[in-house]
Amino acid sequence: MNYLLFSSILLLTPSLHAFNLDAFSKHIDSHQEEYVEALREWVAVESDSSDALKRPEVEKMMEITAEKLRKMGGKVDLVDIGNQELPNGKIIPLPKVVTAQFGNDPKKRTVCVYGHVDVQPAKQEDGWATEPYNLTDINGNLHGRGASDNKAPVLAWIHAVEAYQALNIELPVNVKYIIEGMEETGSNGLDAMVSQRKDTFFSDIDYIIISDCGWLSRRPALTYGTRGNCYFFAEVEGPKQDLHSGVYGGTVIEPMTDLIGILDTLINPSGRILIPGINEAVAPLTDEERNMYENIQFDMENYRKKIGVDRLMYSTKEDVLAHRWRYPTVSIHGIEGAFSASGSKTVIPAKVIAKFSIRQVPDMDPSVVEKQVTDYLNAMFAKRNSPNKLRVQMIIGAKPWVADINDPLYEAGKKAVKKVFGEDPDMIREGGTIPVAKTFEDVTGKRIIMLPIGGFDDGLHSQNEKMSRYNYIEGTKYFAAYLHEVAQIPKV
Amino acid sequence: MNYLLFSSILLLTPSLHAFNLDAFSKHIDSHQEEYVEALREWVAVESDSSDALKRPEVEKMMEITAEKLRKMGGKVDLVDIGNQELPNGKIIPLPKVVTAQFGNDPKKRTVCVYGHVDVQPAKQEDGWATEPYNLTDINGNLHGRGASDNKAPVLAWIHAVEAYQALNIELPVNVKYIIEGMEETGSNGLDAMVSQRKDTFFSDIDYIIISDCGWLSRRPALTYGTRGNCYFFAEVEGPKQDLHSGVYGGTVIEPMTDLIGILDTLINPSGRILIPGINEAVAPLTDEERNMYENIQFDMENYRKKIGVDRLMYSTKEDVLAHRWRYPTVSIHGIEGAFSASGSKTVIPAKVIAKFSIRQVPDMDPSVVEKQVTDYLNAMFAKRNSPNKLRVQMIIGAKPWVADINDPLYEAGKKAVKKVFGEDPDMIREGGTIPVAKTFEDVTGKRIIMLPIGGFDDGLHSQNEKMSRYNYIEGTKYFAAYLHEVAQIPKV
Repeated sequence: MNYLLFSSILLLTPSLHAFNLDAFSKHIDSHQEEYVEALREWVAVESDSSDALKRPEVEKMMEITAEKLRKMGGKVDLVDIGNQELPNGKIIPLPKVVTAQFGNDPKKRTVCVYGHVDVQPAKQEDGWATEPYNLTDINGNLHGRGASDNKAPVLAWIHAVEAYQALNIELPVNVKYIIEGMEETGSNGLDAMVSQRKDTFFSDIDYIIISDCGWLSRRPALTYGTRGNCYFFAEVEGPKQDLHSGVYGGTVIEPMTDLIGILDTLINPSGRILIPGINEAVAPLTDEERNMYENIQFDMENYRKKIGVDRLMYSTKEDVLAHRWRYPTVSIHGIEGAFSASGSKTVIPAKVIAKFSIRQVPDMDPSVVEKQVTDYLNAMFAKRNSPNKLRVQMIIGAKPWVADINDPLYEAGKKAVKKVFGEDPDMIREGGTIPVAKTFEDVTGKRIIMLPIGGFDDGLHSQNEKMSRYNYIEGTKYFAAYLHEVAQIPKV
Repeated sequence: MNYLLFSSILLLTPSLHAFNLDAFSKHIDSHQEEYVEALREWVAVESDSSDALKRPEVEKMMEITAEKLRKMGGKVDLVDIGNQELPNGKIIPLPKVVTAQFGNDPKKRTVCVYGHVDVQPAKQEDGWATEPYNLTDINGNLHGRGASDNKAPVLAWIHAVEAYQALNIELPVNVKYIIEGMEETGSNGLDAMVSQRKDTFFSDIDYIIISDCGWLSRRPALTYGTRGNCYFFAEVEGPKQDLHSGVYGGTVIEPMTDLIGILDTLINPSGRILIPGINEAVAPLTDEERNMYENIQFDMENYRKKIGVDRLMYSTKEDVLAHRWRYPTVSIHGIEGAFSASGSKTVIPAKVIAKFSIRQVPDMDPSVVEKQVTDYLNAMFAKRNSPNKLRVQMIIGAKPWVADINDPLYEAGKKAVKKVFGEDPDMIREGGTIPVAKTFEDVTGKRIIMLPIGGFDDGLHSQNEKMSRYNYIEGTKYFAAYLHEVAQIPKV
């Protein structure tokens, strides 16, 4: 140990109790180009988990992630999580999950950062203005597939720890990472892996942090809830094979007519769910919640224009946010087995399967919803007195997740936001589902916080996905600050 | 001219007035194996008009047909009917149409036999018990794609004329043929070809004969009507791109919900069409018609079992036949633009297009139906007060065709059936559409008769299509007899 290093440690040790934002900002700002370069390297790896042919790229991405954490001195594992059966019956290994650990001081709190380094598919011909796997800076926006979802946030979490190391500031908490490569296709194998490590890797963890989401506007946000999802197949089966509609039309009750008939009983034209019991189960909107919505920065007109509709389902900001986050909704996705190509075909489809889903919110329970939907559709179908057969199946039953925004975990988040961005965060929810949050909560019993740094207009899963330099770099400072703030939560 | 030939002509000349069934039967029966061999050669040509890659096979089939007619001394043309644009934009020539003429005696009547020698697709792996393009005799049933639809009937018409020639019996009528190779994909180019030859090839024709259909039971039948078809696209367009149902669900009125809602107003659960004006336009069922239905041989239980449903839409033979032939019906074929694959996808489709059709019967008028459907759906959609946009389009408007069963043309058919099969025919209609019938009628002004020889269980467009030896061979005798009978209709 040389003197200079020793003195700097002495000098900076108080930072365990007072976060020196200036030192972090200076360090992080001065390394901005390195961070962008790291993101460029990561985006260049076409780690599309939906395409089995790209699996070597995902494996490579997991190796790169592991190596980066290893070089920083982390205790790193590449965890084998078994195999995957492809639709063609072929069995291939799942990408390994990277776990890492920095510090194991039992006197400190331990946080675990979850993230993923696989991406959605992308091709320039889908309408990208730039080559999707070549990170391109346009006016401070870093365009590339996976830039915001979720490579830059994972890197920001790594660089935050690196900054502590570079500044010779002792990490205020023990930091663990769990980084997967199958998130975009349903986190295959992760649930089992989490269950198996409940009493080992997860046992000393206090909190789990997820940054796999985005803000609602240009104002920073903390995310305290996600909706769940009950996904249904409703199959109506009639004739034993498809029939010619000229030859047989008028003599058989057609499965499509029956299916359309029962689908039309799910929801009314203004969006109200008609299945008895669903709306009744929803936790009432509190005044406090409604007041909170009023203060959220949300540009309705911008949202409407982005979607490209003449009118949204609701006319006030509060209603739109509430129906996006805390009320259930029914979406009919499509029908399998019917004629779906362009052109015309005079067929009476013999077996048709509607796909629809109901977004789950507190206090709905997927197993209750399954029964409500099944009973209701069976009753509606019975009324039709059809000779065809209906089979209703719930194939996904993902629960919603909501955190207590008064949890010290969130107070720490608010303080870190205030410190780095100079304003209070919007407290928001996600309309979509991040099933891993609920898994972590249920299996490990740990509390979860979502700390997004993605922009509201990052275009996740879309063409021209981007991460702004601002969100990426300030986000890194914010994560460093959060590690400090979360360390202040007293251990009881 | 040698004496023997001359004497046989003298001997047989009275056949112009008295048909010698025994002579024809003896000749046709003794050539049965040759006829089966001819069918085997024709079935071996994979003349699938739906697959552009098989186009050379269709062309080859047209050549074979032309050559057969040429060898018999016919005046044969292979008529160029222009090009076809494939969905990929490529332009390829349409298969030529074969026209042929036997005799041009102005004192005789002239009939024109229409048929087609292209076929539906077939692959053994679709569930065929035999190789579809290798004619296979199983218990007297000749299995092969196109055997019944329409190769054997076309051959039977050729062999009928050949029999007259072989027996040295003068043809009692002039016989023309028009044989096409695009029937299974919509007779592309045929309408224009018919229009262009209205005053030439078609000018001296008295009657047009079509044998592109089948019996209703084991009893022979004459077909006196087909339903038409109005095929609609109803498109609902909302957001400018597909949306994630988690992120956006609950804030937009989804096009699928709107589309399902309006489709559900087309028809009630028991099959009644709800569009005002449609049922009112249908010609009332006469007592005579109903009585005729009562005498038709039709096994309801067999029909139900073949379809594989627990119950048909109607419980009496008369109602089932009437709703198959002389009442309109709505079939919803499917939805383009929605999720139609197996598995699950959480999408809000931005633009969805329903495909449905309404079978036309007298006295419905497609242009009136177009307005009725469009107005009705627009009114139903307006009630929903949706911000989305509806566009209704009729893309096919094919009229029904019905003949007068008291026409001497049909009397001739009844006599020929009685002579060859020893019983009276069922007078039936087709539920499907044979658009060329209406085209011939409208463009040429000629009367049409449909003389089916296909069996009720031939499996047209299905796996294991077959033609029985019985129907093929007796059908050839029947066609020979019909040529005699139609010649007896006095020229006015």
